[in-house]
Amino acid sequence: MNRKQLFKAIKLKRSFLCVGLDSDINKIPKHLLNHEDPIFEFNRQIIDSTHRHTVAYKPNIAFYESMGASGWISLGKTVEHIRKVSPEVIIIADAKRGDIGNTSALYAKTFFETYNCDALTIAPYMGSDSVKPFLNHENKWAVVLAMTSNQGAKDFQFIESKKTPLFESVVRKCIEWGTSEQIMFVVGATRSSDIAKIRALAPNHFFLVPGVGAQGGSLDEVVKYGMNSDCGLLVNSSRGIIYADTTEDFKVGAKKEASKIQSAMDMYLRRLS
Amino acid sequence: MNRKQLFKAIKLKRSFLCVGLDSDINKIPKHLLNHEDPIFEFNRQIIDSTHRHTVAYKPNIAFYESMGASGWISLGKTVEHIRKVSPEVIIIADAKRGDIGNTSALYAKTFFETYNCDALTIAPYMGSDSVKPFLNHENKWAVVLAMTSNQGAKDFQFIESKKTPLFESVVRKCIEWGTSEQIMFVVGATRSSDIAKIRALAPNHFFLVPGVGAQGGSLDEVVKYGMNSDCGLLVNSSRGIIYADTTEDFKVGAKKEASKIQSAMDMYLRRLS
Repeated sequence: MNRKQLFKAIKLKRSFLCVGLDSDINKIPKHLLNHEDPIFEFNRQIIDSTHRHTVAYKPNIAFYESMGASGWISLGKTVEHIRKVSPEVIIIADAKRGDIGNTSALYAKTFFETYNCDALTIAPYMGSDSVKPFLNHENKWAVVLAMTSNQGAKDFQFIESKKTPLFESVVRKCIEWGTSEQIMFVVGATRSSDIAKIRALAPNHFFLVPGVGAQGGSLDEVVKYGMNSDCGLLVNSSRGIIYADTTEDFKVGAKKEASKIQSAMDMYLRRLS
Repeated sequence: MNRKQLFKAIKLKRSFLCVGLDSDINKIPKHLLNHEDPIFEFNRQIIDSTHRHTVAYKPNIAFYESMGASGWISLGKTVEHIRKVSPEVIIIADAKRGDIGNTSALYAKTFFETYNCDALTIAPYMGSDSVKPFLNHENKWAVVLAMTSNQGAKDFQFIESKKTPLFESVVRKCIEWGTSEQIMFVVGATRSSDIAKIRALAPNHFFLVPGVGAQGGSLDEVVKYGMNSDCGLLVNSSRGIIYADTTEDFKVGAKKEASKIQSAMDMYLRRLS
């Protein structure tokens, strides 16, 4: 999936919504536990009911990994199902990997080839050799943590050196290492003035934006400070959509929530056309 | 495994060696590929031939994950085998995880409970909520990346703010969050003056030290600047041991290499008693 194809999907679906598949065996509706693969069955119904409103799915790997070997099988089946029902969607493995060169190359192979994902989130602490191996795969993406939306973000990401916060140094280095066809940035929705700062540094890069909704970020502010002429945004919602309803009718609730966000996004996208 | 037990194992075995199980299907001796589970069979023989000389094993999770669901089964069997032949050994899952609070808690559960490891390596970029959830498990360890031994380390870890490099800020924050019974630090062997700096900040914490040997770090320097009265060091060797010999006799080569390092360590440990 390249940037042109992603923008095409955004225009087609009138959406820049990413649905986070944080599918937790302790939170999914109880009746699914009778299924042979409850996590996949949950994902399948969520995907079937939301794919018309979304351009991206983001399974957080922690939830699959926590299930042992069977969780990885559920992940594989989930990716396959997304490819079948909505081939224009980008699939982002939210794994926050990062290691020395050879090991990063192996992580890239695992997620891009074995699990057939389009993108992988990357923790930048170990520097260039933890990021660059992910850039050698055509039409695949390294989604580097820049400024995250969690409370702990302030501990290190905002430490300033010569008035440059760490997250800005990360963005500056990354745009030396790869293009806007290879790298996206995780940019939390909760600090809008800093979204503008990162957009100024990286005018063409896509941002994956968590933190709208429950964490207090506003879609309006994210669009105001982060949207570019190719949209340049994937705004994520996980629990707000997949657990909108936890009864047997959960897919109705998920669809309604995804549709609501997509309608709001449609309004913003009109500015681009 | 608490600190006292770890020091006891070090004194018993006259060793502070950690063997890195970077068990790569493309590098293990070819005759093992006929086994039902080649990765486990390789690990089993490596463990049987090295456990008398080592106090720690560190499977790098990338290698297991890259094998799909079967890799996680190999990992589980490997941990079980180590527990059986050498219960005094500490098992460190080298996974470099780090995410928001709830997700980190899930990673802790996965590695500490499901896979029965004693410790997990953690990437600190996301701050407190990416580290603290790992501290809630008694006798388990968060091994936080402070100053790594790879080339990319210099990109961000050495950025200075008010003359304090980032790795030092990470250490300072972490020792506020947890004790030397909960946290270890990854401290690369390649920059000895900085090992001394971290030891001054964290006199009682164990350091997991990569980078001796192939990457140019010296055991003598690591001991000189890093050893404390409880040893305080776990020095890792991965490829230098497990791929010392890649013929059918690989376990002989691995044993010889582990034994050689352990003999050198024995000399240094005499200073403590």
